Amino acid sequence: MTAIPNVMRAAVLAEPGRIRIRDLPVPEPGPEDVLVRVHRASLCGTDLKIRSGEFFAHGGPPADPFVPGHEYAGVVAAVGSTVDEFRVGDRVVTEAHRGCMRCVNCLNGAYTGCLNYGDRGKGHRALGMTVNGGFAQYALNHVSTLHRLPERISFDAGVVLTTVGTVMHAFDVLGTMLAGSRVAVLGAGPIGLLAVQVARQLGAELVALSGTREARLKIGAMYGADLLLNAHEDDVVARVRAATGGLGADVVLECSGAAPAVNDALRMTRRGGAVVLVGFFERPVTADLNQAVMNGITLHTVRGEGAGSVARAVSLAGQGRLDTERLVTHHFPLEELTEAFDTYAERRDDAIKVMLDIAEPDAPDLGEG
Amino acid sequence: MTAIPNVMRAAVLAEPGRIRIRDLPVPEPGPEDVLVRVHRASLCGTDLKIRSGEFFAHGGPPADPFVPGHEYAGVVAAVGSTVDEFRVGDRVVTEAHRGCMRCVNCLNGAYTGCLNYGDRGKGHRALGMTVNGGFAQYALNHVSTLHRLPERISFDAGVVLTTVGTVMHAFDVLGTMLAGSRVAVLGAGPIGLLAVQVARQLGAELVALSGTREARLKIGAMYGADLLLNAHEDDVVARVRAATGGLGADVVLECSGAAPAVNDALRMTRRGGAVVLVGFFERPVTADLNQAVMNGITLHTVRGEGAGSVARAVSLAGQGRLDTERLVTHHFPLEELTEAFDTYAERRDDAIKVMLDIAEPDAPDLGEG
Amino acid sequence: MTAIPNVMRAAVLAEPGRIRIRDLPVPEPGPEDVLVRVHRASLCGTDLKIRSGEFFAHGGPPADPFVPGHEYAGVVAAVGSTVDEFRVGDRVVTEAHRGCMRCVNCLNGAYTGCLNYGDRGKGHRALGMTVNGGFAQYALNHVSTLHRLPERISFDAGVVLTTVGTVMHAFDVLGTMLAGSRVAVLGAGPIGLLAVQVARQLGAELVALSGTREARLKIGAMYGADLLLNAHEDDVVARVRAATGGLGADVVLECSGAAPAVNDALRMTRRGGAVVLVGFFERPVTADLNQAVMNGITLHTVRGEGAGSVARAVSLAGQGRLDTERLVTHHFPLEELTEAFDTYAERRDDAIKVMLDIAEPDAPDLGEG
Amino acid sequence: MTAIPNVMRAAVLAEPGRIRIRDLPVPEPGPEDVLVRVHRASLCGTDLKIRSGEFFAHGGPPADPFVPGHEYAGVVAAVGSTVDEFRVGDRVVTEAHRGCMRCVNCLNGAYTGCLNYGDRGKGHRALGMTVNGGFAQYALNHVSTLHRLPERISFDAGVVLTTVGTVMHAFDVLGTMLAGSRVAVLGAGPIGLLAVQVARQLGAELVALSGTREARLKIGAMYGADLLLNAHEDDVVARVRAATGGLGADVVLECSGAAPAVNDALRMTRRGGAVVLVGFFERPVTADLNQAVMNGITLHTVRGEGAGSVARAVSLAGQGRLDTERLVTHHFPLEELTEAFDTYAERRDDAIKVMLDIAEPDAPDLGEG
Repeated sequence: MTAIPNVMRAAVLAEPGRIRIRDLPVPEPGPEDVLVRVHRASLCGTDLKIRSGEFFAHGGPPADPFVPGHEYAGVVAAVGSTVDEFRVGDRVVTEAHRGCMRCVNCLNGAYTGCLNYGDRGKGHRALGMTVNGGFAQYALNHVSTLHRLPERISFDAGVVLTTVGTVMHAFDVLGTMLAGSRVAVLGAGPIGLLAVQVARQLGAELVALSGTREARLKIGAMYGADLLLNAHEDDVVARVRAATGGLGADVVLECSGAAPAVNDALRMTRRGGAVVLVGFFERPVTADLNQAVMNGITLHTVRGEGAGSVARAVSLAGQGRLDTERLVTHHFPLEELTEAFDTYAERRDDAIKVMLDIAEPDAPDLGEG
Repeated sequence: MTAIPNVMRAAVLAEPGRIRIRDLPVPEPGPEDVLVRVHRASLCGTDLKIRSGEFFAHGGPPADPFVPGHEYAGVVAAVGSTVDEFRVGDRVVTEAHRGCMRCVNCLNGAYTGCLNYGDRGKGHRALGMTVNGGFAQYALNHVSTLHRLPERISFDAGVVLTTVGTVMHAFDVLGTMLAGSRVAVLGAGPIGLLAVQVARQLGAELVALSGTREARLKIGAMYGADLLLNAHEDDVVARVRAATGGLGADVVLECSGAAPAVNDALRMTRRGGAVVLVGFFERPVTADLNQAVMNGITLHTVRGEGAGSVARAVSLAGQGRLDTERLVTHHFPLEELTEAFDTYAERRDDAIKVMLDIAEPDAPDLGEG
Repeated sequence: MTAIPNVMRAAVLAEPGRIRIRDLPVPEPGPEDVLVRVHRASLCGTDLKIRSGEFFAHGGPPADPFVPGHEYAGVVAAVGSTVDEFRVGDRVVTEAHRGCMRCVNCLNGAYTGCLNYGDRGKGHRALGMTVNGGFAQYALNHVSTLHRLPERISFDAGVVLTTVGTVMHAFDVLGTMLAGSRVAVLGAGPIGLLAVQVARQLGAELVALSGTREARLKIGAMYGADLLLNAHEDDVVARVRAATGGLGADVVLECSGAAPAVNDALRMTRRGGAVVLVGFFERPVTADLNQAVMNGITLHTVRGEGAGSVARAVSLAGQGRLDTERLVTHHFPLEELTEAFDTYAERRDDAIKVMLDIAEPDAPDLGEG
Repeated sequence: MTAIPNVMRAAVLAEPGRIRIRDLPVPEPGPEDVLVRVHRASLCGTDLKIRSGEFFAHGGPPADPFVPGHEYAGVVAAVGSTVDEFRVGDRVVTEAHRGCMRCVNCLNGAYTGCLNYGDRGKGHRALGMTVNGGFAQYALNHVSTLHRLPERISFDAGVVLTTVGTVMHAFDVLGTMLAGSRVAVLGAGPIGLLAVQVARQLGAELVALSGTREARLKIGAMYGADLLLNAHEDDVVARVRAATGGLGADVVLECSGAAPAVNDALRMTRRGGAVVLVGFFERPVTADLNQAVMNGITLHTVRGEGAGSVARAVSLAGQGRLDTERLVTHHFPLEELTEAFDTYAERRDDAIKVMLDIAEPDAPDLGEG
């Protein structure tokens, strides 16, 4: 086992718009913590808002220095005094949220909607958002935010499972079995593409995917979508209705964050069906909500991954039933973080998931797969 | 027992905008039907759209002659050959929907969202909407659409229980107990006022009501609302947040049908809470749905009364725990139907529920309460 | 298309213990019915009780002549006047129950628990149990009890999907996603074996199967069970606990109908987990129910296939993800029904599903697959 | 405000069967703790097993000295460094369980079924069971285990709300609205009697209660039971069926812990209804579980009060809708704990809830109601 150094390289939000790599002390795990040596970390849309400062609407970042990063995988380097759930050397992937576990929502199992969000004193932590995260050589996780990676899952494939957790949660809130359902997914970004794959695995009868980029729709096809729709060219509502005998889809996942998509979602949903809003909207949405009222359509929402969702994602991946690695289009060493951010922000070369390689390649003793 | 005549007086939609009273044959009950001698029938917003013809978007009414009316109570006059659930003389109230009971939604218990809506041949019937209803001396009900009225419930009070059924359904879709919840009701029409009363009875910790008419808010107070808000004058979002320790309401019922109310509803709902859209919207709604996404708020909808809901309403009324009669502000004989419609449409004299008196007062043999 | 004859060969319950083949008139479809030309029908444990008369506790069979058979597949031969859901020539499989669709349970979607069970006048029908079934050349189905078979599904494979429907229902009542769950199945009969397969397909992390016959456990292994247990030789509770890190299974399906299995099920279930009782018990069960109380374990039950369950089974099969044909161990022509019953009752040659071949092999015009 | 002393009087489990009052240091609140000055504490059946040592199956009590007591109310005396949910002087009632909040069950909101039950190091605490409780002048609570008492609620009435929490949970697990349901409660102990009251308040159409002591059945009548049954003399199954038109109760709560009651419960439950097992069973139960399987009856269980349940109980009490004080039949000063235990164990003078008076009556500065 490699000794844990005192100092690590970490990405630090310097001022709005600028992230720098610098040395920071390696954090010490508290009694319920696990210290993770990060191997891979990926960028998510929220990281762009963190870099720009937009994420911190009311003042600056929650710590100084502040380390972003909430999607990462690595190896357990040390555990806190009460932790026997993991051992040093375990390969792990993270989820983003630890609740305060004392508010009404946390006590009821809805910790991603913690009422003490951001209150570090009461125990809430959103990794890389309200506390330091994983764009660093080492990261501190509460024990409840880690999941052991099956051997067959590489770190690249594993990092993406945090995102699959959100997809799992989106299907979980429906409260019904997906087998036999007709599902439409709006938006062919990482979440939408993963939703196609998960819906297929859970037994959906039909999976439709709409997007704007042909390259991504092709991935959707590889992931098992039956019906590929170009949101710019096709009448997506009519196409989904036609593919469902006129009835509409049982479940529609809105993963695009495009405001007009809500109206489409409502109009392509079966009477009595469900829409799940997964994408974040940048501006107010105008939609014919009477369509929902007249047809008894429920609009669920998903914020983050939800209890048990990442574990389900890891399980399905461990069964060899998810291909998440395909979405990793780019790798950059931690030191080239700015390049990584720009590549992701501008979708250079059709970038989908952009990955930071953090652990040195010559560290086989850490069990890198 | 009074003999059933061959001919009855009935309100018939003559041309768009015009309803006339004329003689029609008394209908014959089929094997699963119950013939109801109607005592009281009330007007609902949908009836205004039926009178104007707006309800029948694609062509005229579903029958000629067509009798509207879907909220009524009366006495069983005859039963079909297979009916032993009711006896002649039973006092009953109706619900509006009978599903086809063969589509996927009906088989799953969601018959108000029947996929064969309007298809009479397949067995669907929406009383007074797709088949003849209760603005007549006699009406034909499928046995599954009737509920026996407890003795203590007058016909006036009983008719309103159809509407209470919608309220019950709005709370039922939440899937949780209401006891201890903080509830906000937007809109002080009949549904909103009844929602106040039901929420109170089911144990809500706090019930807030917003409306625009002082007279109605006063009824809300009598029905147990803790917090009365004038939607024109108060900052309803701030007031509900203040009354809930800043957290927001656990459940918000949107009963106004006013498009801006959706945004208010989302902003006054607790993280992880639920909004139920009960009111019909006349036009597209613009709302900050990201508020829902970021806070894990679910938007439920309600169409009609839902399985078991009217039975629950009748039970609660029979326990002496609902005061529905107070909402009946006007009575007209059937022959003055036009006056009744105009009174309701223009809310003359603060009209809330406008009731048609159909059975003659000198018909005590029918068991009128 | 072959013309429909006036007379058909049918199995008829003569006296208790004896079923004969004789000629009966081909039934005429009512307005909501579909006439099915039966190609394959299989025997189920209930059929043995029907033959013995034990099933009809209070008097004899519900009709004279009475035709058993509630698992069958075939081709639509004629449709009732209101039926447009199917066309003549469609290949279909049946489910057993049509509810009265007017009692509280049916209205709420629980039609397999119809409160008017056996009341033909009110519309209830349990095929081959309370009305005539499918051990005949033609059978009458209510339109809601049929599901179209995908082309790739043979009639043999299709008949077994009725049983898969029960399995689907057993997982559906849990109200949660199966992905990532650890599942134990007690009993390696047809239902248990199919449960293994379905659990695997829906993403279970671990599937344990206990049984008493090695040949069946081997099929369980082929169907994807991770852990095979011999109920006679192994300490099944200890083995399941060991395989789940001491915690116990998340879900245990009791499919054996063996009374002692309930105690085992409770002791191998995770705190907060669920047991589903699928098998019928012949006698009272003695179990340490305090184990359930102290650990917050829910005992669900399943009777029949439940709304939507056969449709889900057909969908999964159509996706090529179920191998049901392997369970069909024997075929007999209808005329050899007695031999078929005895083979099944005595489990001759390891009989699992015993199939009646009803349609003539020289009937290709009916679209036999 | 009274200063907090260093030393307090406390009941301590000396050896099995013997509890003594002695001086102990007043505990210090940790960062998430609240120190409660106990005013009233009541005895529960579990306390009898704690006194006898039977509760600690594997070895002795979890601490030395060990203080029992998990039902108590009092006044906040001090708060930990992170606690702003309560202030010194707040009147509060406790619930028994704090989960580890890191196992799968706790993360999903099922903290009373914590998988680390008894593991103090990981944060689990069951007050008076695995950590020191409230039979003392001061008790330490995790902040999540306290609920503020409304002013109108006396300490006597308040202590009993912990038990009402269990009742609330028993109805909550049903997942449906109780309004309009027919409910049968088996067992007229404190839980059964409180269940009658809660069922009535939540809108049950019918509430039947069976018990063995006339005095308790009389309280049941005062609490609103419609049907009082003597379990020794009446055919309770027949009576409940008769009162429900032959159908059986929608919901049956088994609160007696008597093994034969399970069979009765199953036989008096409506097809498709639910049984909730609330009472602890001392020995294995023999029951005709096939009754459940054939009728699609679910058996729920309840362990402890469940998330949100005590809060609901407090809310309903604060609305003036629960009369819990009537169940308090005896008071003893802390020093007479042995007398109190014996009175409760032997049900002397029809003892129901036996209360310890702990705070001095001359302590009005603590806000005693």
